[in-house]
Amino acid sequence: MKEINRQWLLRRRPKGALVAADLEYREIPAPDPASLRPGELILRNRIFMCAPTMRNWMEAPGNSLYPSIPLGHPVMAPAGCEVVASARVDVPVGSEVTTLASWQDFERVGVDHPVTPVPAGLKLADVMGPLGLNARTAYFGLLRVGQPKRGETLVVSGAAGSTGAIAAQIGKIVGCRVIGIAGGDAKCRMLTERLGLDGAVDYRSGRVEADLRALCPGGIDIFYDNVGGEILQAAIENMARFGRIVLCGQIAGYNEGGAVPGPSNMMRLIYGRIRMQGFLEGDYPGEAVEAVDQLRRWIADGKILHREDMRRGFMNLPEIFNALFDGGNEGTLLAMID
Amino acid sequence: MKEINRQWLLRRRPKGALVAADLEYREIPAPDPASLRPGELILRNRIFMCAPTMRNWMEAPGNSLYPSIPLGHPVMAPAGCEVVASARVDVPVGSEVTTLASWQDFERVGVDHPVTPVPAGLKLADVMGPLGLNARTAYFGLLRVGQPKRGETLVVSGAAGSTGAIAAQIGKIVGCRVIGIAGGDAKCRMLTERLGLDGAVDYRSGRVEADLRALCPGGIDIFYDNVGGEILQAAIENMARFGRIVLCGQIAGYNEGGAVPGPSNMMRLIYGRIRMQGFLEGDYPGEAVEAVDQLRRWIADGKILHREDMRRGFMNLPEIFNALFDGGNEGTLLAMID
Repeated sequence: MKEINRQWLLRRRPKGALVAADLEYREIPAPDPASLRPGELILRNRIFMCAPTMRNWMEAPGNSLYPSIPLGHPVMAPAGCEVVASARVDVPVGSEVTTLASWQDFERVGVDHPVTPVPAGLKLADVMGPLGLNARTAYFGLLRVGQPKRGETLVVSGAAGSTGAIAAQIGKIVGCRVIGIAGGDAKCRMLTERLGLDGAVDYRSGRVEADLRALCPGGIDIFYDNVGGEILQAAIENMARFGRIVLCGQIAGYNEGGAVPGPSNMMRLIYGRIRMQGFLEGDYPGEAVEAVDQLRRWIADGKILHREDMRRGFMNLPEIFNALFDGGNEGTLLAMID
Repeated sequence: MKEINRQWLLRRRPKGALVAADLEYREIPAPDPASLRPGELILRNRIFMCAPTMRNWMEAPGNSLYPSIPLGHPVMAPAGCEVVASARVDVPVGSEVTTLASWQDFERVGVDHPVTPVPAGLKLADVMGPLGLNARTAYFGLLRVGQPKRGETLVVSGAAGSTGAIAAQIGKIVGCRVIGIAGGDAKCRMLTERLGLDGAVDYRSGRVEADLRALCPGGIDIFYDNVGGEILQAAIENMARFGRIVLCGQIAGYNEGGAVPGPSNMMRLIYGRIRMQGFLEGDYPGEAVEAVDQLRRWIADGKILHREDMRRGFMNLPEIFNALFDGGNEGTLLAMID
């Protein structure tokens, strides 16, 4: 019996949150290993990571520099995969890799498509979760872009989320005073009680700017922003002189589609000598091994608590993805494919 | 006969452009040298610089980190002054200094008010013009914040203005391709024909974004922004990956009062790895002497053409100041006091 390749195709551009009718479910035959051309791989996708920025990728091609998923193609997603057929000597059948894949069972990728082998001694679940893209993003964003110094005040938005929680904990490790912003009492308590942050602001209070002022009387030295919108504005109004704003994500605007609005009060950026800087995890290829080693040690030493939200089922992917936006998930949102 | 001290006091906060009724003209007796306390100076203001950001200082105290001129006080302004009475051994009577003074004939300043002696061999007009605050601002903003590399594309807004023209010319000196944005045909021709820039965009065309795209097919590596608003947005839409935005001024918003609106399309900053950074000239005190020396050599070698717009008359100060905003001035706008 021939194997089936299940797919979730992007049928139309979402307006607002992704809904079922934006996607088309399809089953086609799995790719035939006999048809492999030189350098090609056939990967079986085992774990998908749900990243908020994938919602941006669902937009029509625009000027925002992120990729646009063509209509009729499976939804692109970071994935952990098993190699089921290989025409590459350096990537043996049976090995595991991470790559930018898509919502289907099997991915056929060419020689120019980057795949990263799972390092010896690690499992696929490790490199998708505690040592994965989001953890490395937090590492480089905070340490390389934010450049924290001992005693400085760090504020992290989306602090109960996958990237934010790691950024906040690294902030504690390097000696910052760390305030997290999250939605609701339970998440805020988790930030102070479980992650050991120095304070938490519930953005649902509607007074983020005033709460930050009370918690950061000397101003914010580093704002690690996963959210944007009004929360970014509230932080700008509280930045200390020579502060840094690490632009990691702008999830508040993703479901709006199009260009994500920016902050106001530009003169405060000038007179405050504020640096606001975007980055991507892949900007530090020479340091990736070191980052993973360091994260591993911090986790082993109990200095970083990694939380993952592992869900199951290929058929549930659209619903799982939306948990990113309804405030319902905590930690890295992963989907294990059955 | 006792000397008179003429003053232009801020009577109320301007709405929009500064108008005569926002100010009060007053004459009071000049300060009495016999009343000097230890460390005090009496300065005679000789040349005022008109800087766009002074319009911000006229706003009520807010959260934008710039100073607010108290109502009833003379309008604060950078000035070149003669020392007419001194209770400081390091600042002799008859010497010349630059300082933050105000729109009056005589300034009485305490020991904690910074004054900078005019370096030996230079005239007051030099340190107010070609080697002055704006020139040093352009120097540090472009070289230290912008970090230009040979062959990169630099775009300067307000390029016919005092700071912009110097930033653009330093860009040429360090090997950048330089495009200037200015208002009107005459200014644009001046940029290419007299300052030697590689191209000019007339913002009055209403298609700055498209014009920048045509002139910068590889994107903008450095945007030196004096203007903000729609011009900043047009630049953001054209920034190259890893580009830098030097936030020097936001003159487009100054006459609006309050917080100056910022740009949109934050995802482009993230995926483009754009760095946007505010700064002030005073951030580089250890390099000020080197900056002045370098600017002096470049001017002497004919590599920088400095243009100043010297006007006259204490009574004309309000009108002279407004020439900053009507597009009518070119180069450093100075007011010599009669």
